[in-house]
Amino acid sequence: MKPDDSRRVFEGKQVSVEVERWGKREREIVRHPGAVVIVAVDAEGRVTLVRQLREPARKQLLELPAGTREPDEEPLATARRELEEEAGLAGGDWRLAATFYSTPGFCDELVRLYFAEGVEETERALQEDEEIDLLRVPLNELEAVIPEIEDAKTLAGLLLYLRER
Amino acid sequence: MKPDDSRRVFEGKQVSVEVERWGKREREIVRHPGAVVIVAVDAEGRVTLVRQLREPARKQLLELPAGTREPDEEPLATARRELEEEAGLAGGDWRLAATFYSTPGFCDELVRLYFAEGVEETERALQEDEEIDLLRVPLNELEAVIPEIEDAKTLAGLLLYLRER
Repeated sequence: MKPDDSRRVFEGKQVSVEVERWGKREREIVRHPGAVVIVAVDAEGRVTLVRQLREPARKQLLELPAGTREPDEEPLATARRELEEEAGLAGGDWRLAATFYSTPGFCDELVRLYFAEGVEETERALQEDEEIDLLRVPLNELEAVIPEIEDAKTLAGLLLYLRER
Repeated sequence: MKPDDSRRVFEGKQVSVEVERWGKREREIVRHPGAVVIVAVDAEGRVTLVRQLREPARKQLLELPAGTREPDEEPLATARRELEEEAGLAGGDWRLAATFYSTPGFCDELVRLYFAEGVEETERALQEDEEIDLLRVPLNELEAVIPEIEDAKTLAGLLLYLRER
């Protein structure tokens, strides 16, 4: 399934935009390299959440650790790298729990959700421009955090994890 | 909370892109008018899902009825209009169940999730370029549909609804 025609109208460092023609329809499509998001649970049964400024929202949001895919990097490698850098967690048993589009009406960002159980603390390695607070939430307090979540992938990730337990 | 500087680098019909400077950081931000998504349950206890081609995904996806906000339209009015146009459903008791960003790392799209219970069938009014199949799923079969869902707002919406019951 392909468009009849496609032209790039914006080329950025983080995203680009293409206008595609599908029959009589024209669609503006934001191209994104894809992302990973992780429900990481440590041996004490705590899930790590991160709080950081999200410029598009003009405020700090509470989210699962996540990151953007790098070219030629396997999604699982991205997920392990991001979890270590952002949250200072490594090891554990990993599995791909779901794959979904963040907003498929106009953007091709595909998100891979991982569950990582039994992760252990290691050294964080935040990038120079990152300021991220960590929250370790015991599983039995997770339900109480849900109303505070304003990020789709975090809602999906936490609710899918809670549902499996 | 505001950027130090902002310039529009792409102006489209559906989205636009701005480059913002926040201190030393530059961020490409996709501007979107916002969206609504609806868990609509009829008197027989069936939830309506829609299946349609999503060009960015290059395939059909199964989703909750949803739509983009129009300028100067109240979100609840958008939601009622979209549910009638897309799914041929009207009436019922409505409430705002959650508000979340679809992908807050690079996009300001804010999604309002509504629960509408007791909706009734009416005439559909699809736009000329819309081809949408309807699925009415009994509540007790909803869990079985979850693994097929590849859309973040639909996962969040269905799981939040199931959790409340």
